[in-house]
Amino acid sequence: MEIEPGVYSGACPARALLDRIADKWTTLIIGILTETGRPVRFTELRRAIGGISQKMLTQTLRDLERDGLVLRTAYPVIPPRVEYSLTPLGRTLEAPLAALSAWTHAHMADVRASQDAFDGRTTPVALSA
Amino acid sequence: MEIEPGVYSGACPARALLDRIADKWTTLIIGILTETGRPVRFTELRRAIGGISQKMLTQTLRDLERDGLVLRTAYPVIPPRVEYSLTPLGRTLEAPLAALSAWTHAHMADVRASQDAFDGRTTPVALSA
Repeated sequence: MEIEPGVYSGACPARALLDRIADKWTTLIIGILTETGRPVRFTELRRAIGGISQKMLTQTLRDLERDGLVLRTAYPVIPPRVEYSLTPLGRTLEAPLAALSAWTHAHMADVRASQDAFDGRTTPVALSA
Repeated sequence: MEIEPGVYSGACPARALLDRIADKWTTLIIGILTETGRPVRFTELRRAIGGISQKMLTQTLRDLERDGLVLRTAYPVIPPRVEYSLTPLGRTLEAPLAALSAWTHAHMADVRASQDAFDGRTTPVALSA
């Protein structure tokens, strides 16, 4: 079967959305907002997600807000308090992203075994070069 | 509810796997291999996926091969011919990734409406600054 042009092509509008949804930071942020089931502060998200920079977290949250998936609520207090929660549209992403996360946990051992076999197979070739 | 340390933390082994799976290139490559249902050549993948560099495609395919999700077959012909297909483990990813892709198509219009509202709401503020 030929490869149909479609979401794979850079020109498809759905491709830009898929690029943002199929993203580790999006998956982690929506996972946390789902799991906690309450509005979460920026600083909490930052602490919970290992390795995310302040800039990347800010940008990802802004994209998710613009896409209508996350609601941003700023409270006029000092110091400023900003909380994020899932919108009804954002909650429709819970199931597919949870399935991805469940796959990761279910197949972790298979993947590890494959990695060990691959590394055992390829390392000696690299050493003998 | 408190945020449980787990897959969100950088230290969790499942996190490294989720980072690779929740990735636009992985989603697109596995989508193409699923849809075609036959081994696909490197050059076909490169053509089908808009915007992917040769280096990124090579690295992503190598990671997927190491993870045991993709099988690489090199034929000893001139010019060299290399084909990629899904392993049985890789096929278990079809359903969760297809669900993500289906979500994208189902909610594209909602997201577009939200983006338009967001841009309409935020642009005047930026202009008046």
